[in-house]
Amino acid sequence: MGEPIAFRCLTCGREYAPWTVDHVCPRCGAVAGALDVLYDYRALRRRLDPRAFAAGRRFSLWRYEPLLPLAAEYGVPLRAGWTPLYACPTLAAELGLGSLWVKDDTANPTASCKDRGTAVTIAAARMLGRGALVCASTGNAATSTAGFCAAAGIPCSIFVPQAAPRAKLAQLLAFGATVFPVEGTYDEAYGLAVQAADRFRWYNRSDGQNPMVVEGNKTGALEVGEELHCDLPDFALVAAGDGAVVAGIAKGFQELVKVGLAERAPRVYGVQAAGAAAIAHAFARYREGKPVLPAAEGAETIADSIRVGNPQDALRAVLAVAETDGGFVTVTDEEIVAAGQELARRTGVFAEPSGAAPYAGLLRLLREGTIPPGSRVVLFVTGSGLKDPEGALRGVEMPRAIPPTLAAVAKVVEG
Amino acid sequence: MGEPIAFRCLTCGREYAPWTVDHVCPRCGAVAGALDVLYDYRALRRRLDPRAFAAGRRFSLWRYEPLLPLAAEYGVPLRAGWTPLYACPTLAAELGLGSLWVKDDTANPTASCKDRGTAVTIAAARMLGRGALVCASTGNAATSTAGFCAAAGIPCSIFVPQAAPRAKLAQLLAFGATVFPVEGTYDEAYGLAVQAADRFRWYNRSDGQNPMVVEGNKTGALEVGEELHCDLPDFALVAAGDGAVVAGIAKGFQELVKVGLAERAPRVYGVQAAGAAAIAHAFARYREGKPVLPAAEGAETIADSIRVGNPQDALRAVLAVAETDGGFVTVTDEEIVAAGQELARRTGVFAEPSGAAPYAGLLRLLREGTIPPGSRVVLFVTGSGLKDPEGALRGVEMPRAIPPTLAAVAKVVEG
Repeated sequence: MGEPIAFRCLTCGREYAPWTVDHVCPRCGAVAGALDVLYDYRALRRRLDPRAFAAGRRFSLWRYEPLLPLAAEYGVPLRAGWTPLYACPTLAAELGLGSLWVKDDTANPTASCKDRGTAVTIAAARMLGRGALVCASTGNAATSTAGFCAAAGIPCSIFVPQAAPRAKLAQLLAFGATVFPVEGTYDEAYGLAVQAADRFRWYNRSDGQNPMVVEGNKTGALEVGEELHCDLPDFALVAAGDGAVVAGIAKGFQELVKVGLAERAPRVYGVQAAGAAAIAHAFARYREGKPVLPAAEGAETIADSIRVGNPQDALRAVLAVAETDGGFVTVTDEEIVAAGQELARRTGVFAEPSGAAPYAGLLRLLREGTIPPGSRVVLFVTGSGLKDPEGALRGVEMPRAIPPTLAAVAKVVEG
Repeated sequence: MGEPIAFRCLTCGREYAPWTVDHVCPRCGAVAGALDVLYDYRALRRRLDPRAFAAGRRFSLWRYEPLLPLAAEYGVPLRAGWTPLYACPTLAAELGLGSLWVKDDTANPTASCKDRGTAVTIAAARMLGRGALVCASTGNAATSTAGFCAAAGIPCSIFVPQAAPRAKLAQLLAFGATVFPVEGTYDEAYGLAVQAADRFRWYNRSDGQNPMVVEGNKTGALEVGEELHCDLPDFALVAAGDGAVVAGIAKGFQELVKVGLAERAPRVYGVQAAGAAAIAHAFARYREGKPVLPAAEGAETIADSIRVGNPQDALRAVLAVAETDGGFVTVTDEEIVAAGQELARRTGVFAEPSGAAPYAGLLRLLREGTIPPGSRVVLFVTGSGLKDPEGALRGVEMPRAIPPTLAAVAKVVEG
């Protein structure tokens, strides 16, 4: 394993010995104290053999144990990661791209990329002997926590706003989580989860609270690297809500460079909905040399997984994306809906709206000229369309019923 | 690849040269003419090296190309198969079992085991140069066909009863399939698809129509075999609707024995809902030496994927299960709902009701003594709970909302 050398606060830069702090920086507090795990990349560079990833015959993110902060033996059996990467040569050619890949993270155990962060977080909880977890979320992170806790036999408490959608509640309750529907907003549920974690000594998996989450999230990039033999794409696009996923993807690509396996990281673009673009705004401020941390904004989009007004990992996302010379792009709900249809029709990958947003972002960056013709691009599809079937039905015309006769079929077929 | 030596009719025994017939036996017709693919197992036995499966580095069902009827090059990129097998030692011990494994086929591209049969069927369509597919189904097989056709760039037509649930329509329409909602029952939709396949020369992926479907389905058993180093379980349980999946699982295990890789196949049990038990009844008739083929029965169960009154692959299922010295077991809807909760809570695998039915079947066979203590058992979970979230919510109590205060949390936690 990678043996972290420190947990460093992203805001004040203070470093802590690994595992001596669980969550945010005690000095900076809960709002801006996200911790980053530091490794000795020079030492790793000397001893890392890229063939080791495959040689371990682990078909999960634990194949990257040399770049993870703890040993695979603490992981639960659920197979997070090692999801498929699909090449799309026909679509690439039509778009004028050199190559286009779709990284299908809907194939994770609970059908979203959040299982990566959860897998590493739960392993840490087991290593640390923590007996219970907590997560605040309306969606995929909560479900993922509940599923992995079920597999680990560890109790968990989930804080969701009272208005959480039934389908997501179904998955949570099926996994036996203790669900607290909170009378209030997502922000109130989040704040309550932080307080409860403190009070009951629950290990907190919420985005922005736990340095392990990004360590798991980064493995999506490591997998793309391994599958492409470290000949990395020019651009990588991924949806951004709280910011922990895009930060992880950027970190993963950078690590491949830092340990000497790849020459250059892709420029990573976070894709946000135009109506929920707090990190994109923070990134613009960062570019102007202003303070990054955003005030809470309104958040309105059909893409519920990135409907975040007060992103909990904004600073990390901004810094990580900037390090790759990437950026942020916003897309409208209409573009997201159209992208979802097009992605499913052209690749066979059925994404929830936020999972399709990177395809919308790609089209926009191509139009703007930010992504030049001939580029090699990877899109991260972060959640399954089955998480929000009503979202997929938007903008689709229901076909009319026909009588059970061949003549009726012929009329449709032959026009 | 396995090079089939013949396609044989399961009803009349007539053999055809491979690929000279597409679908059912021309002599027996559409009702009872299911074709089975025959291989020269003695020849395979001599030349098959079990290490070849892993050596090919294919992380899909195409790793079993030596036992498949056509070359992997015809497959589409979507990664069907190579799904996780989870060992559940704690649950096994509680149930008095020697071992318990869960084969999680919800990790397939469209979230059900149907992707296996589809992957091989679409590859065959490409090899044969067939330009369009058709599938009749209300659910997982249709979605799977639509997704793989999208990835292949092949048009497909889907016949569903008009009353098909919206979530399943969402996935179908997202993939760009031509959907024919038929005014009538599933049986009428099925019959119409058969006629349309004939008329428009569409390649038919419907269960019971195409010998390729079972060739794909059998790979679930091959994977279990490979992961357990061919030390096969004593019992394998899988839900049965049309019968094509349980038949495939039984065939796969038998093939491991026939090619000399395993000593003995598990006894395969098909699990049906008590209200939709046509194959179980057919199996009972078979045991009494009576004709197998069932008359259509009523079909009533919450497990919509096995809500089949007139199973299209009943004969194949009965013969294949009998060959393993297995059988059929029926479970009530109450048992299925309870099994779904228990499975999710104990393993982290969220199954649709039919996917949880094997766990219910296991409990029943344990109670009956059919499965003795100390047995080694594998359960096939064939479809994701996200396909039917309302099904998962049955029998679950919704937690009450709390005000956003620590006191309210403490009251729940401390009781």
